[in-house]
Amino acid sequence: MRVDELQTPALLVERSHLEANLAEMARVRPGDRCRPHVKAHKSTSLARLQRDAGHPGFTVATIREAEGLHAAGLADDVLLANVVLDARRIGALVADGGRVTVAVDSEVAVAAAADGGVREVVIDVCVGLPRTGCRPEDAGRLAALARSRGLAVRGVMGYEGHLFIIEDASQRRPLVREAMQLLASAAADVGGEVVSAGGTATYAEDIPWVTEVQAGSYVLMDTAYQRLGLPFAQALSVLGTVISVSPQGWAVTDFGLKSLGMDHGNPTVPGHPVWFCSDEHTTVGNSLEQGAPLALAVGDRVRGLPAHVDPTVAMHEQLWLVDRDEVLERWPVDLRGW
Amino acid sequence: MRVDELQTPALLVERSHLEANLAEMARVRPGDRCRPHVKAHKSTSLARLQRDAGHPGFTVATIREAEGLHAAGLADDVLLANVVLDARRIGALVADGGRVTVAVDSEVAVAAAADGGVREVVIDVCVGLPRTGCRPEDAGRLAALARSRGLAVRGVMGYEGHLFIIEDASQRRPLVREAMQLLASAAADVGGEVVSAGGTATYAEDIPWVTEVQAGSYVLMDTAYQRLGLPFAQALSVLGTVISVSPQGWAVTDFGLKSLGMDHGNPTVPGHPVWFCSDEHTTVGNSLEQGAPLALAVGDRVRGLPAHVDPTVAMHEQLWLVDRDEVLERWPVDLRGW
Repeated sequence: MRVDELQTPALLVERSHLEANLAEMARVRPGDRCRPHVKAHKSTSLARLQRDAGHPGFTVATIREAEGLHAAGLADDVLLANVVLDARRIGALVADGGRVTVAVDSEVAVAAAADGGVREVVIDVCVGLPRTGCRPEDAGRLAALARSRGLAVRGVMGYEGHLFIIEDASQRRPLVREAMQLLASAAADVGGEVVSAGGTATYAEDIPWVTEVQAGSYVLMDTAYQRLGLPFAQALSVLGTVISVSPQGWAVTDFGLKSLGMDHGNPTVPGHPVWFCSDEHTTVGNSLEQGAPLALAVGDRVRGLPAHVDPTVAMHEQLWLVDRDEVLERWPVDLRGW
Repeated sequence: MRVDELQTPALLVERSHLEANLAEMARVRPGDRCRPHVKAHKSTSLARLQRDAGHPGFTVATIREAEGLHAAGLADDVLLANVVLDARRIGALVADGGRVTVAVDSEVAVAAAADGGVREVVIDVCVGLPRTGCRPEDAGRLAALARSRGLAVRGVMGYEGHLFIIEDASQRRPLVREAMQLLASAAADVGGEVVSAGGTATYAEDIPWVTEVQAGSYVLMDTAYQRLGLPFAQALSVLGTVISVSPQGWAVTDFGLKSLGMDHGNPTVPGHPVWFCSDEHTTVGNSLEQGAPLALAVGDRVRGLPAHVDPTVAMHEQLWLVDRDEVLERWPVDLRGW
């Protein structure tokens, strides 16, 4: 099938970019030094490619993502990098032979894990981002509590995502190191072999005690991450059709804010400034000087680049793997929901 | 079932508010004077309540929405208020006995409708919002073209959504009237009995020649529309669980930007300022003076009010109809996708 035959809006994954992204991560963070975060793509087809690239484990954010990986035979070592207060579905998955380690950051979370049938945990440590995670000085106490409840404590995790908005790597690097020092001190108190941190922005940081990076966006990429100057290519785009062109100088595509995550702002349509998005429309203007004719016609196909990959993919039922104008495969987005 | 037993995040619809909203619309715009827009809720269960409230027709934005209404026996008079360049699925639906009228705004769109098996159209007229719609002076010519292709032209539609950001009704009213004058002139050229316009913001405007209003948000409501001072109640909320509380003064719920449309900004959590949303988290702070203890504990349930109802619902598999703490019904969000 040709890309032009796809009904729009449609999510496209450009194979050459995807393969380059997989190769770059496997080169810098081979094997278990990267634990790909499937929340960025919610697709077991793509997760399988990440495993084939050498990464044996996965990170997930929801119970549904863990269940889907298990159903697809990909749950050899899954880290649920999130706190859950009802862990019974994870317990059932573990009883069924899946390996899922759960993040805990409070006494209530430890009790929920133990009560739900979870066997392994990491201590989630706050390293500066005001989100989940205990204080570094409380990590050892929580680990002891978890062990007293019969849980194996594999180590610690911490997410320095508040530093990813700093675009200049030379400014970001010392602050990342400082945040990771907090994680190191917690790891010393907790014990275990896992120190899990970071993401796409910090995949190449050389911090010896961090054993694995939870990178998700790298594989598909978005325009927000692209501002950091990372060597990953924009593999994901939303294909749309121009359904209307105004003689007053704008054109309207059939992708809108129901097919694009908007928390990081508007999508980018190369060559055409985006004016605004509605539910099922994006209005774009002319890239040329004022008054020049609009270089788009009704029926033209355009590709929009999402500002944030994770919520964009979660809005779609499928990803289409393409090689320029040719459609290669359809991948269900099979890890949606909770 | 009790609301506290629902797995979170979960979308709740408060029955008393929903019923009040349905009643208010049926009072001011009874029968076919309102054509409810199902894009706001994407649920045939809720659409059925709107029909039971007296509104015989529906507005949709996608082919999938039209197909779902037809499958549910609700396609007696559906207006696809959007331009489609491949109308074959609509043609199949019409051949199967559904009544779907399609918006057209160009020669290409007219040809697509005729070629796809569509039988009835309205001329989509631009009344100021830079989106779809022909110029008012081109509407008559397009109607003649449509009729020459064997299409019945039922009238015109135009959406004055660019005026809905004006919060003061006394300032908004004359501009809405001006936009509707454009639609009236197009209607005179086009003929037919339908003049379809507006939305929740203008449901109560008394413009004699507008025969029907395409109101969607009124039935569930969001915080953006609430700023307009409309007499509709916030029936929709996202139920979350507090999964983490920091001694430094913030708490984290398990609803985030994958369960909330973010194009109109952050959700509102009554009593707790929202700091930011991540994929599966919302961090909230203390509503009390600086330094006072945070009035939230791990395990507490909180309700977030979405800033934009349409994309929020589209992210969920179901709506839960509730009466305060009691769960009454589960409604599948069965009109998602394209």
